[in-house]
Amino acid sequence: MPRPPHVSPHVAAMPGGIYSALAHRLEAREGEVYPFHVGDTWMEPPDGCRMEDLRTADHPGLHRYAPVQGLPALLDAIVERQRARTGLPVERRDVLVAAGATGALGAVVGALVAPGDEVLVLAPHWPLIAGIVRAVHGVPVPVPFFPEVTSVAEAVAAVAARLTARTVALYLSTPNNPTGRVLPAAWLEALAAWASDQGLWLLADEVYEDYQFEGRHAYTRPLLPGRTFSAHSFSKAYGMAGNRCGYVVGPGEVMEHVRKVSTHTFYATPTAAQVAAARALTGPGDAWAAAARARYADLGARVAARLGLPAPEGSTFLFFDVARRLDARGLQGFLEDCVERGLLLAPGPSFGPYPTHVRLCYTAAPPDVTLRGVEALAPLLA
Amino acid sequence: MPRPPHVSPHVAAMPGGIYSALAHRLEAREGEVYPFHVGDTWMEPPDGCRMEDLRTADHPGLHRYAPVQGLPALLDAIVERQRARTGLPVERRDVLVAAGATGALGAVVGALVAPGDEVLVLAPHWPLIAGIVRAVHGVPVPVPFFPEVTSVAEAVAAVAARLTARTVALYLSTPNNPTGRVLPAAWLEALAAWASDQGLWLLADEVYEDYQFEGRHAYTRPLLPGRTFSAHSFSKAYGMAGNRCGYVVGPGEVMEHVRKVSTHTFYATPTAAQVAAARALTGPGDAWAAAARARYADLGARVAARLGLPAPEGSTFLFFDVARRLDARGLQGFLEDCVERGLLLAPGPSFGPYPTHVRLCYTAAPPDVTLRGVEALAPLLA
Repeated sequence: MPRPPHVSPHVAAMPGGIYSALAHRLEAREGEVYPFHVGDTWMEPPDGCRMEDLRTADHPGLHRYAPVQGLPALLDAIVERQRARTGLPVERRDVLVAAGATGALGAVVGALVAPGDEVLVLAPHWPLIAGIVRAVHGVPVPVPFFPEVTSVAEAVAAVAARLTARTVALYLSTPNNPTGRVLPAAWLEALAAWASDQGLWLLADEVYEDYQFEGRHAYTRPLLPGRTFSAHSFSKAYGMAGNRCGYVVGPGEVMEHVRKVSTHTFYATPTAAQVAAARALTGPGDAWAAAARARYADLGARVAARLGLPAPEGSTFLFFDVARRLDARGLQGFLEDCVERGLLLAPGPSFGPYPTHVRLCYTAAPPDVTLRGVEALAPLLA
Repeated sequence: MPRPPHVSPHVAAMPGGIYSALAHRLEAREGEVYPFHVGDTWMEPPDGCRMEDLRTADHPGLHRYAPVQGLPALLDAIVERQRARTGLPVERRDVLVAAGATGALGAVVGALVAPGDEVLVLAPHWPLIAGIVRAVHGVPVPVPFFPEVTSVAEAVAAVAARLTARTVALYLSTPNNPTGRVLPAAWLEALAAWASDQGLWLLADEVYEDYQFEGRHAYTRPLLPGRTFSAHSFSKAYGMAGNRCGYVVGPGEVMEHVRKVSTHTFYATPTAAQVAAARALTGPGDAWAAAARARYADLGARVAARLGLPAPEGSTFLFFDVARRLDARGLQGFLEDCVERGLLLAPGPSFGPYPTHVRLCYTAAPPDVTLRGVEALAPLLA
């Protein structure tokens, strides 16, 4: 009973400062700052899709509540996009527009997970998924996956080894945050079949679907449509992270429960953000994403090469072990040395059991800034 | 263990369609529609505070993530406002900018309430507070208060009668949604003293602080600053509900836990919404709110008079019993009769144990539309 001064024990045990506990130290810095710690983009949203392009006269109700499920025009655009990309007979009722993929996955987990339930999470993982599960008193169970798993059989064995009677769902992200890896289609198929056999929900975080650098993204929902929730992001697709607008697609009869949770966490998604998303999705968004994809792929390869790492396959991150560069101060000391050079990196423990890793986002600052930051970082890794 | 097709039992038990399960019936209506069911405003935000006024060139990062606590400029404006209005030594660490007061209170409840904990809720109550508590597996306990309670002693007796060993917090809203009543300062003082004696958290929903029609709003935090969280809304203050931006103020050492929950439900508040809020708060907001207050007070009094109800004291709602107008179809039949006339009202059960009440928001549509709607409604009540 968390009466004052105590708070909910699960929340008290959650870490703060996920992406950097040191960012405040750079607020007063005079020199250049390299914000490699948060996943964002230096690019502005497509023309016609910025706040200054949204006129109240053209969009009555632009500052009023949107329906909790989403603006009808955006829902319809999402339905069309999802049908085209997945081949599934998606309907409006299968879709929830949410306050980013974070709001979307938070609502899904809130609807599916009861206290004490376990969610298998392929690791290293998007940091927020662990806290999302903990915030509703569930238990995230990291499954070491990248780079340990190298075959379909190992993929299934890895998740099977951590299955318990309390397991209710499996979460994966591809293209992966933080590793930049892409899950091969055959692995996805095997994981979906296993989840089906075990009677689990499947949570597919596909926010980097447009940022796979070779080949086409393999969608998860067609493999297990009655049990899969796929999360998608206008933040990542079109450089609108600050707008807080994404969406999730899942089985319609469960989505009505997901909507109950979203209604009680952020109520509705920002109206202007939805108008901007609809404009991008039905207009210049695809061309913008294609250009961004080419620039991200080029930049990711250059950054990786400079740091002696393999080129990323997708997303906007590199994740690497700095164990050999640590002194007695451990990872914290390394991150502090980085901060002294204006470099912010995200600490490995936010991504699972990775005490000596760091994550670097190479798209948050303009390419010239990023490349200067990488030059500042390289000596610390040599 | 909510495996497919089951969802979390607490969420499954939550109702959907809080404000109206019938709104979709009016999508294709030819005649005028009267959206009295949701709390919103017909007024546009102040000049200079609309989306079209926010230029990327003036606000670098307008479409990128804001810090999870809020934009520094907005935090500072809130700190200044709170110091001036409450006299308390508020600091940045005491403040969280959130996806509306819904996001703010959701994060507070998420941090304070463990599964099975009870939250006393003065009733009738803002509908979302019940679902917010249920969504984290807590138990909302409605305390019949308006109009039952008529004295300080009765106010304390009402909450004391529902106290159990599992009670962790007391929630109140003033000016009240849905009744339009204002809690007298002496009652607030007595409730705060009682909460202090019992070792409870106090959640003060003050989103209608600018919409008290007589006298000045009495703030709750000065009565019990170490245990009170006060929720505030730019949505209500400045006609920006669609922007999804509000804030909560509370004890700094607990706010760090509240931020963990908000980070995992909506991550950060929309950046453009925060820029717009800061502009309003430091510019034309107060004048806008003063003008809106006068219009709301006048309109509320006229609507109440036409329906034979006492004039509201604040907020933007009337809440009244239609028991004598119900036939064998019950409240649902009455709401359906309303829909046939283009009228949407919110059903009493969303606000607590009020099976024959309805809530009417008189500010969602322009005054002329609202008054026509009230003319259409009056015969149904006569």
